[in-house]
Amino acid sequence: MEKGFTLWLTGLSGAGKSTLAQLAAVELKRRGYRVEVLDGDEVRTNLSKGLGYSKTDRDTNIRRMGYVCKLLARNGVVAIAAAISPYREVRDEVRRMHVRFVEAYVKCSLGALIERDAKGLYKKALAGEISGFTGISDPYEPPLNAEIVIETDCESPKASLVRLVTALEKLRYIERDGLP
Amino acid sequence: MEKGFTLWLTGLSGAGKSTLAQLAAVELKRRGYRVEVLDGDEVRTNLSKGLGYSKTDRDTNIRRMGYVCKLLARNGVVAIAAAISPYREVRDEVRRMHVRFVEAYVKCSLGALIERDAKGLYKKALAGEISGFTGISDPYEPPLNAEIVIETDCESPKASLVRLVTALEKLRYIERDGLP
Repeated sequence: MEKGFTLWLTGLSGAGKSTLAQLAAVELKRRGYRVEVLDGDEVRTNLSKGLGYSKTDRDTNIRRMGYVCKLLARNGVVAIAAAISPYREVRDEVRRMHVRFVEAYVKCSLGALIERDAKGLYKKALAGEISGFTGISDPYEPPLNAEIVIETDCESPKASLVRLVTALEKLRYIERDGLP
Repeated sequence: MEKGFTLWLTGLSGAGKSTLAQLAAVELKRRGYRVEVLDGDEVRTNLSKGLGYSKTDRDTNIRRMGYVCKLLARNGVVAIAAAISPYREVRDEVRRMHVRFVEAYVKCSLGALIERDAKGLYKKALAGEISGFTGISDPYEPPLNAEIVIETDCESPKASLVRLVTALEKLRYIERDGLP
């Protein structure tokens, strides 16, 4: 039972939250943990159809995601949430729902994100074609006390994974094990 | 991993779904299963605030509940849902989301429910003070192929529990074990 916890990845769009969540899921499954990844977009489809991107709607979506993570975590699952979750207050509310909760700030400079722009979203947001885009026309409140900070503009996804997993080991959320 | 499944309790308001869900949770936990009960009302608060009782809104709520049950079940948890879930089609949709799913129809005659009326809801519904009340002013579509039928107007909650657990054993969703 005690193995479950929620790993909450917050950060700007394109910072690498989903990639890191998937890599972490593979690695933790390899180590024998039950893992469920909750990706912000997928959760919106399943739990929050009809909600938009106002602060209220974003907060409601994050609360629902947090509730599902809580149910999984208290049943022994490592729930990995990957969601922009731009507002500090609701992230802290989700933290308070949990007994075991780790916040990882997936940090990447706006400059690097605009340059990379894999999905072309920043270009559109800068051109005003997408409104309420986090980091451009909508706020992002970085965590003040995240247990883990991953700087994806400075390192490869593999290196980020090693740092994340090592941090989880140090926090004693998972047991030590050499990475493959 | 293979231990997880969803036990879906459907039936009219007051038929005894929540009572049976709680009794089953205690018994299955005693046998070493991880169990999570999702009660319709609680899930509405956490996942479906703002939704009403139209067919569309009821279906959306059930779909969300089904999605959460699916996540739990595939991670080894016995997810017990207790929800009126009056519409057959969406119950079957939830069934199709799952690998391991058991539908239990918690059946009680309307006469017995009106007589019992622990919460006074049937009286209000019959007086027209509550609109869209399942069984009175809103439809209930009984399951056609429920794996288990529990008739709560003919037996005590304890007897229903024994029948439910015995059925789960026969279906091989849980291992055999003498009830205490």
